[in-house]
Amino acid sequence: MTASDVWLVALPGVPEVRPGDDLGALLAEAADRIGGVRATDVLAVSHKVVSKAEGRVVPLAGVFPGWEARALADEHGKDPRHVQVILDEAAEVLRADRGRLICRTSHGFVCANAGVDASNAGAPATLVLLPEDPDESARQLRRHLGCAVIITDSFGRAWRVGQCEVAIGCAGLAPVDDWRGRPDAQGRELAATVIAIADEAAAAADLVRAKDSREPAVRIRGLERHVTAGDGAGAAALVRSLEDDLFR
Amino acid sequence: MTASDVWLVALPGVPEVRPGDDLGALLAEAADRIGGVRATDVLAVSHKVVSKAEGRVVPLAGVFPGWEARALADEHGKDPRHVQVILDEAAEVLRADRGRLICRTSHGFVCANAGVDASNAGAPATLVLLPEDPDESARQLRRHLGCAVIITDSFGRAWRVGQCEVAIGCAGLAPVDDWRGRPDAQGRELAATVIAIADEAAAAADLVRAKDSREPAVRIRGLERHVTAGDGAGAAALVRSLEDDLFR
Repeated sequence: MTASDVWLVALPGVPEVRPGDDLGALLAEAADRIGGVRATDVLAVSHKVVSKAEGRVVPLAGVFPGWEARALADEHGKDPRHVQVILDEAAEVLRADRGRLICRTSHGFVCANAGVDASNAGAPATLVLLPEDPDESARQLRRHLGCAVIITDSFGRAWRVGQCEVAIGCAGLAPVDDWRGRPDAQGRELAATVIAIADEAAAAADLVRAKDSREPAVRIRGLERHVTAGDGAGAAALVRSLEDDLFR
Repeated sequence: MTASDVWLVALPGVPEVRPGDDLGALLAEAADRIGGVRATDVLAVSHKVVSKAEGRVVPLAGVFPGWEARALADEHGKDPRHVQVILDEAAEVLRADRGRLICRTSHGFVCANAGVDASNAGAPATLVLLPEDPDESARQLRRHLGCAVIITDSFGRAWRVGQCEVAIGCAGLAPVDDWRGRPDAQGRELAATVIAIADEAAAAADLVRAKDSREPAVRIRGLERHVTAGDGAGAAALVRSLEDDLFR
């Protein structure tokens, strides 16, 4: 009997990450406590530690909000400095309602508050931004760790309640598994099946963590068939072009 | 050292399921081959076997398309009988483009072709519908198997490329983990964090399967903290009300 299986373990004992820290070294050390990583493993890393290591944190005290931030903050009961940082990160504000600003980021991601977040920021009155180039962050970690890497964040979705963790950066893992033109179990050609593997891996990793735990990274074993020799297209390939988007 | 972990295994040797089959018995038998299920396990079951067991299959030969189905089929290059079945399952057609009809189903799910699918249907020229009440299907399987159950399907998403598996039915698992008002790792109150646990579990289970394999069910171990004593709110709780939906 051969059963397919996937096994996910959180890396224990990752310390609080600060700007300038060598995140690759910290993660490698933590991975060693659970037997290290193999080339066929995928390491899912919460973007927050990546952003912190890369210095993508903003102390509110140094932010001076402009008129647009002040107006939006006033309307939605938010801190105008927080709104200014969101506007700085947003390529476009798509909707504003009840304190939430749904934005498209410079990467093309559509998410609440342009990914700017105050939770688990590591210091009071500090905001954490998304990494500037999460695919490049993933590539760097992959080079250091020798396994596939995804960088993840929690995004809200259209039509459905709650957030799911998705991949905002990816290296060494095929972001999608394209079954179009391949046969199903009964030999019938699949017409429209493209599976967002990197997003499903991010979601799976999120199940291992609690939001009040300090477990920013999860080792995923069992995705060998999606692990690639090169870095691959990255999570940028998961951004849907507007003209192809029927689900909005 | 205590590391959190989650382990997923596909149930081996589930036979082709036919209308009227006792799916609970077939899944229990398959689970026994990998040591059975515990009360704290979650079994993720692809809706297709549930639909087949419940007789939610439609042979195309018996479908007589009306004028609306004929017009849509003509416009989008589809079989008018297939379109008729989609229209029968749809509460509303939201968009129609390039052969895809994005619909809201009677359950409130927004998905391509109202969940009507020709792949892995088990017989040629046959369509598989979504279960009539997937939460009730999950409750029945839970009673039979004695573990939490989610019924899953692959849905396309707004803004992002590819499909992710989501939970369309759920029993014995909290569909969401609501962190609003609870503290993060640094004691700061989380404002907007509601995690769609059942959808993340569905996505995780999808990683274990290939689309050409006959592995309709995956046992998930390690989600004890989300397993509930009762059936719970079900996947119906994951349908976002339109007025609360900022992500469309």
